[in-house]
Amino acid sequence: MANYKNGLETKESLYQSAKKIFYQKGYDKTTVKDIITDARTKQGLLNYYFGAKENLAVQIYKDFCNDVVFCVDERKAELGSLPRGLLFDMIGYRAYFKALFTDASVTRFYAEVSKLPLFARSMLDLRDYFFNLELEGEAYMGINPRLKERRYFEYLKSLTVGMEIQVFRDVLEKQIDLELQDAVDWFFFDYYSFLFTDGDYIHENIEKSRKVVSRFTFEISPVFEISLSVRPDAKL
Amino acid sequence: MANYKNGLETKESLYQSAKKIFYQKGYDKTTVKDIITDARTKQGLLNYYFGAKENLAVQIYKDFCNDVVFCVDERKAELGSLPRGLLFDMIGYRAYFKALFTDASVTRFYAEVSKLPLFARSMLDLRDYFFNLELEGEAYMGINPRLKERRYFEYLKSLTVGMEIQVFRDVLEKQIDLELQDAVDWFFFDYYSFLFTDGDYIHENIEKSRKVVSRFTFEISPVFEISLSVRPDAKL
Repeated sequence: MANYKNGLETKESLYQSAKKIFYQKGYDKTTVKDIITDARTKQGLLNYYFGAKENLAVQIYKDFCNDVVFCVDERKAELGSLPRGLLFDMIGYRAYFKALFTDASVTRFYAEVSKLPLFARSMLDLRDYFFNLELEGEAYMGINPRLKERRYFEYLKSLTVGMEIQVFRDVLEKQIDLELQDAVDWFFFDYYSFLFTDGDYIHENIEKSRKVVSRFTFEISPVFEISLSVRPDAKL
Repeated sequence: MANYKNGLETKESLYQSAKKIFYQKGYDKTTVKDIITDARTKQGLLNYYFGAKENLAVQIYKDFCNDVVFCVDERKAELGSLPRGLLFDMIGYRAYFKALFTDASVTRFYAEVSKLPLFARSMLDLRDYFFNLELEGEAYMGINPRLKERRYFEYLKSLTVGMEIQVFRDVLEKQIDLELQDAVDWFFFDYYSFLFTDGDYIHENIEKSRKVVSRFTFEISPVFEISLSVRPDAKL
């Protein structure tokens, strides 16, 4: 009975094995057999807990986003003098993009995941959460009058998700000749120009967020743990 | 030897069978076996001519776009007084979107196709063609100075493809609460605001293109042939 595991252990094993092998071999080359062999379980249990390989990958992606948000959130006190709103969004976003590029095997994995049909749907849910949290709280509506309309909100969500997926897929795959930093800056400008009509205000915040994130450090373990931290000597 | 076909006949049969069954049953539910049975050929020949089911679907999509462009182009003389450039692009685009929604089984097929990884790549190639044709000829660069930079060009191509895929996938699947007409108008405004900085100029052209396309008629045969035409009595 050495290999006997209870339900939660099995689920966790499947998750950890999938994560490890996805990062090592890439998503496309990883078979369900690879995962269940490593996790010492059966395909029926993978199906039971996750449905399919795709769902596992998207779950790993969601946790990756949560890790970034959590790390940035934890450092909020150290960034005490910063206002909430645009700048804070940008710092979170920039950290997310930077984390995607910290390790070549991580980059490859997320480039592959970005092609899964389920990925777009999952990004829309994430954006929904973000919009509800940030936009309602900060009343961006006062800045762009179109945002008052729920239908424009919905449309915008879809639009910006499509922008993000396509541009970063292309940058990740090096299909377009752009430095990550430039791609992120351009993305920010175009993305936020839907929310704010004042271009100078956006540019100013882009500059500030670049400075803040350049003071974050990123640590990636072999099996990938994200760790963002502001250096103790950082003066913002 | 009644079923003997030469190479081109086989290729054409596979293409027509795939198109018919994709529209009837939907892409996801169509099997390779359905196609080869209807085309009276073997899987080896499907692989030889098209590689995979996905390639067949994307080829059908490309021909769909070409049909729209061709129909609009044919009517150019009748639209004689219209200037080239923004308005003409909008008419072509609007016809394309309208054609997507002319028939429920066509709409379903393109909603499915929009999820294929190959689809995004194919859209980028199409946009490349469009950008080279329209932007270089019309010198949009004078209007948005950022377009002078090749890297911004590349970025914009990727960005707008992502916007288009995501928004129309969501509208096609009725995931967002938008009328097609509104979605297209919003898309135009946001899409062209990357190219033109004058919002009033864009709005004016949106209005005009709505009027022109409302005078096109669309005819769809059971196996889907697109036919756009301006009514003889149309006064533009």
